[in-house]
Amino acid sequence: MQKSLSVYDSDGSTFVPLVVIELVSETKEEAIAWLLNRVRDKQQDGGAELLVEQLTPGAQGTEKDNPNVYVVGASWQRLLYGAEDVGFFKEFNDGSMRGFTYANKHNFKEFQGDGDGFLSMAECQYIIKHELDNLRAKDEAHVPGYPKMKLYPGKSVIRRMQSKGILVQVFPLHEKEELKRLSFSWFKKIKLSFQPLDDIRHYFGEGMALYFGFLEYFTLALIPMALIGIPYYLFDWEDYDKFTVFAGFNLVWCTVILELWKRLSASLAYGWGTLSRKKAFEEPRPGFHGVLGVNPVTGRAEPLYSNAKRQLRIYLVSVPFVLLCLYLSLYVMMIYFDMEGWALMIHDEEPTLWTGLLLFIPSIIYAVVIEIMNLIYRYAAEFLTGWENHRLESTFQNHLVLKVLVFNFFNCFASLFYIAFVMQDMVLLRQSLATLLITSQILNQIMEAFLPYWLQRRRNKKAHKRMIKTMEDKELPLSEQVKLEADMSTYLGTFDDYLELFLLFGYVSLFSCVYPLAAVLVVLNNVTEVYSDAFKMCKVFKRPFSEPAANIGVWQLAFEAMSVIAVVTNCALIGMSPQVKSYFPESETQLIMWVVGFEHFLLASKFILTFVIPDVPKHIQIKLSRLEFESLEALKKRKMLEASGIPKTDK
Amino acid sequence: MQKSLSVYDSDGSTFVPLVVIELVSETKEEAIAWLLNRVRDKQQDGGAELLVEQLTPGAQGTEKDNPNVYVVGASWQRLLYGAEDVGFFKEFNDGSMRGFTYANKHNFKEFQGDGDGFLSMAECQYIIKHELDNLRAKDEAHVPGYPKMKLYPGKSVIRRMQSKGILVQVFPLHEKEELKRLSFSWFKKIKLSFQPLDDIRHYFGEGMALYFGFLEYFTLALIPMALIGIPYYLFDWEDYDKFTVFAGFNLVWCTVILELWKRLSASLAYGWGTLSRKKAFEEPRPGFHGVLGVNPVTGRAEPLYSNAKRQLRIYLVSVPFVLLCLYLSLYVMMIYFDMEGWALMIHDEEPTLWTGLLLFIPSIIYAVVIEIMNLIYRYAAEFLTGWENHRLESTFQNHLVLKVLVFNFFNCFASLFYIAFVMQDMVLLRQSLATLLITSQILNQIMEAFLPYWLQRRRNKKAHKRMIKTMEDKELPLSEQVKLEADMSTYLGTFDDYLELFLLFGYVSLFSCVYPLAAVLVVLNNVTEVYSDAFKMCKVFKRPFSEPAANIGVWQLAFEAMSVIAVVTNCALIGMSPQVKSYFPESETQLIMWVVGFEHFLLASKFILTFVIPDVPKHIQIKLSRLEFESLEALKKRKMLEASGIPKTDK
Repeated sequence: MQKSLSVYDSDGSTFVPLVVIELVSETKEEAIAWLLNRVRDKQQDGGAELLVEQLTPGAQGTEKDNPNVYVVGASWQRLLYGAEDVGFFKEFNDGSMRGFTYANKHNFKEFQGDGDGFLSMAECQYIIKHELDNLRAKDEAHVPGYPKMKLYPGKSVIRRMQSKGILVQVFPLHEKEELKRLSFSWFKKIKLSFQPLDDIRHYFGEGMALYFGFLEYFTLALIPMALIGIPYYLFDWEDYDKFTVFAGFNLVWCTVILELWKRLSASLAYGWGTLSRKKAFEEPRPGFHGVLGVNPVTGRAEPLYSNAKRQLRIYLVSVPFVLLCLYLSLYVMMIYFDMEGWALMIHDEEPTLWTGLLLFIPSIIYAVVIEIMNLIYRYAAEFLTGWENHRLESTFQNHLVLKVLVFNFFNCFASLFYIAFVMQDMVLLRQSLATLLITSQILNQIMEAFLPYWLQRRRNKKAHKRMIKTMEDKELPLSEQVKLEADMSTYLGTFDDYLELFLLFGYVSLFSCVYPLAAVLVVLNNVTEVYSDAFKMCKVFKRPFSEPAANIGVWQLAFEAMSVIAVVTNCALIGMSPQVKSYFPESETQLIMWVVGFEHFLLASKFILTFVIPDVPKHIQIKLSRLEFESLEALKKRKMLEASGIPKTDK
Repeated sequence: MQKSLSVYDSDGSTFVPLVVIELVSETKEEAIAWLLNRVRDKQQDGGAELLVEQLTPGAQGTEKDNPNVYVVGASWQRLLYGAEDVGFFKEFNDGSMRGFTYANKHNFKEFQGDGDGFLSMAECQYIIKHELDNLRAKDEAHVPGYPKMKLYPGKSVIRRMQSKGILVQVFPLHEKEELKRLSFSWFKKIKLSFQPLDDIRHYFGEGMALYFGFLEYFTLALIPMALIGIPYYLFDWEDYDKFTVFAGFNLVWCTVILELWKRLSASLAYGWGTLSRKKAFEEPRPGFHGVLGVNPVTGRAEPLYSNAKRQLRIYLVSVPFVLLCLYLSLYVMMIYFDMEGWALMIHDEEPTLWTGLLLFIPSIIYAVVIEIMNLIYRYAAEFLTGWENHRLESTFQNHLVLKVLVFNFFNCFASLFYIAFVMQDMVLLRQSLATLLITSQILNQIMEAFLPYWLQRRRNKKAHKRMIKTMEDKELPLSEQVKLEADMSTYLGTFDDYLELFLLFGYVSLFSCVYPLAAVLVVLNNVTEVYSDAFKMCKVFKRPFSEPAANIGVWQLAFEAMSVIAVVTNCALIGMSPQVKSYFPESETQLIMWVVGFEHFLLASKFILTFVIPDVPKHIQIKLSRLEFESLEALKKRKMLEASGIPKTDK
């Protein structure tokens, strides 16, 4: 960990600043004093026992700068206790992964000396965030100085101050040396290589590393498809018949890669210690509100919100809203087809180069409109899901993901389904697919990486030159670094990145048989995506808090649902191909029955395959069982010892 | 618990006999002495610390009687420690279910005085079985007196002696008073009422109680279907058109009842304390053999058998064998259709009353042949699965269930599918269904309850009168009771009972729309099934060891698979009905597309429904979360106390 930056705490000793807390500049003194005391208080007194100091403005500090910026750190002992608290798994002396305990610390492989360097900076920051979030009100009825900012015993202080707006932000600091090394091995060197997943995990945490791992895996998995696609494109450009083979390949491919990813992700998560880590008890999300009552699980005072009311909001407002949006999307699609027809008419009347180009215009406009609709809907969905007032962050996320997925799927693929199965026009399908895919890729790259970067540069226009110079400079004073990072955009999580991959997976698995170049395009896109995502994580955004994750969560389910739809779609496309149709010249009914039977067989095999392939590789399963067995044995031994001390009478 | 029966142990004090161990009569003295010592030894010396005595033959004992019969019991303290060992959950003072611990015993609701009566006899017997099974070899290289009966450290002594044949059987004793009360409330009183599930669980354990609970639930769930079926039968005997409504009802019914059962079974299991009980580490099954090696999980010496060899046996022998059997079954089916055609021909040539009856003969013969084939296949499957040499009892069971289910499903339903979808002859379908259903029901009842009862009566012919008299007599001496029970048949588990329900569920959910009376017949069958099963459990079989179970296990999956097949089948039947066909007079293709679309929609809804309906009812979920939360809090508190004792330095 960096040693160069340090601040003096109230006792005059130094500590390494890890996390920044920013309060609004007009915060009342008594509230600040109270908060700092609570952060510093000993744990047995209900405090967080962390080190916290006000940031002293540097030489270039102006009066406009917010004075209420605080840096938080902790002693190594405190961090090690915290690591036990949050339940980190670390590599033990015998090579297995075990839950870290302070008492047992010397038996962990990488623990040396006083434990400095045992925890990565990201882990330390996660611990500090966890301890800050768990700083709970005791007898205070409100935040001192703010009678309206109500508290009750057990309420998280930080969350209340955040939701009421006096706490602007809490964010972890970048570590420039490490970031530089990571950037270099990740996206600055030119030669083709795997991503440094372990380093990414070390710096950004497991959630982020799993996203990049999945992105890389998905890209590699696409390469066989892209390789098969290229000769199709080169030699059989107009040969629709051969796509049956390609569709069959698609079918198997999308089932198998998802199963294998589960195993790979289990391997990664085991090595990172998150596979067997127990989830902590989930607290209500910050935005949750309700009437104060008693939680039946914890017995604590807590806002309660009736489930019936929430269901009413979901079924009477959210569901109709989503349906309305789907209808709207359908309406826009119909306008697109009208435009398409109109362009075709003009082209047919008097074909010139310009009218030839005109043919692509409706598709491009439609692709842009789709992206805009997705974006607007995204905000609406977030607002609605917030309004549904879910108690837990996880249920909030699930409802949000469901809403967004249904609409995006419909919005992006409805026109393709319409062209494929209602119009049965394979030429138009290919053309639409290509336009949609290429346009959305270009738009996404712009929206995701270049727009935030450009915005940030514009914002920092004045300080621009200084920044560029100082970002390279090791000896940038702490106050400057904090100020620079506080102004960076906040990374909002992997949601949008996964969503983009989900849609790309859809384009490839659903329709790539009619446009074999799709896989090639997606591979190219993913390669640039790796670079642009890596760039934005390192250069554009504030460092995010790491999120321990054992898998890609709800997205695994979403991708699997897509692969089921892909089986159905590909079977239907196979059934529609002239090649297959020629086998049943006399009866269309028989053809359909065969295709349906084949599809049912495939779906059944798919589900059986999901059951048969174990989700966790054997060697990891053995390690997990061994740990479980050992803890059972230890328990038994302890009981035996206890029991042997007590005299027994036989009656 | 019964107090009337008791034996004197070696110290002269009495104990209640719970479990009987029978060794072959020519067992060597030294082996017996060694075994008894091991059973009696203190736990810290590696013994089971149980009480065991040889059964002294009663007044009517003859020389032919096996002298090597031992009764096992335990002190109350030992049993309470055992209850903690096996992890029983009991009702706590605050109404929640908690893992029983000896130290905390007075805080459990039903614990009074010294704990006598806290554990049911079935639980005590389960504990004793568990402790006997866990009696492990120490340094003995073989069973004393039997150099060929190899042992190695950690090998279960009882299992080795059982697999080598010197241990004939281990079985728990009946408790006549309680059995009498149970029989009365279960099947002896005439008035209609629910089964006494709690009493059944108390006497036979959770596994059995869940079977009877499921049987009852299934019967109740069928009643609406039966009620709808009766008017169909009475008024619309020849109206095939109306069955569309019935098929639609079927679809919803079979999805909903299985989801609701999961919730009901969770409620039952929570009340019985098995829902949150952790599964013990699974030991190799007795029949497992291999080369002695080191288990990678436990580090113990243990036979190992290569997984590759097992896979070879499965894929090169078992799978082809199953396929061959399926082919054979198909062949028999074809013979049946030939017979059917031949009977029809005779009837058509010269229709008389006799030829009219002749029409039913092929179906009846076929039904009998199906039952016989199922029976033979069952033995073959058991042999093959044993030969595959699975390490764990659970994988053995899964492979056995899979083999048996596939064949039985095929054997019982292939002809019906053929008639329905290839011949499309609804009259024949109805007739076949009725004959199959009725014949198999009659055969089953005979095979299941009356045959064993009759066999047993024949076996006990000599002692018959005495038995009848003495079975009613409270004061039957222990030696007589043990002798009588040792001769009773052994109950082989709920496998066959669930299999029968599975096939009945199939008949009802797949085809009952063409023969609405099926549900009525199944209801009637189930009602008698309850009585005959209850009768056989109480009167015909040895008492089985109770099996703690939280759900119906792999059968839930089997029933759900069947309900998926039912959706497909019912959709196809709807599509074939003249009523639906009349909506699409011009195009059969369009009809099929609609039906397939509808079916896909239903399947998707079914899977979504499975996700949306929580498997555990809310109020139980809250109780479970509370326990989890409390244990997390307790852990945190303990850590805090530990941590506060250690001085910290802030650097």
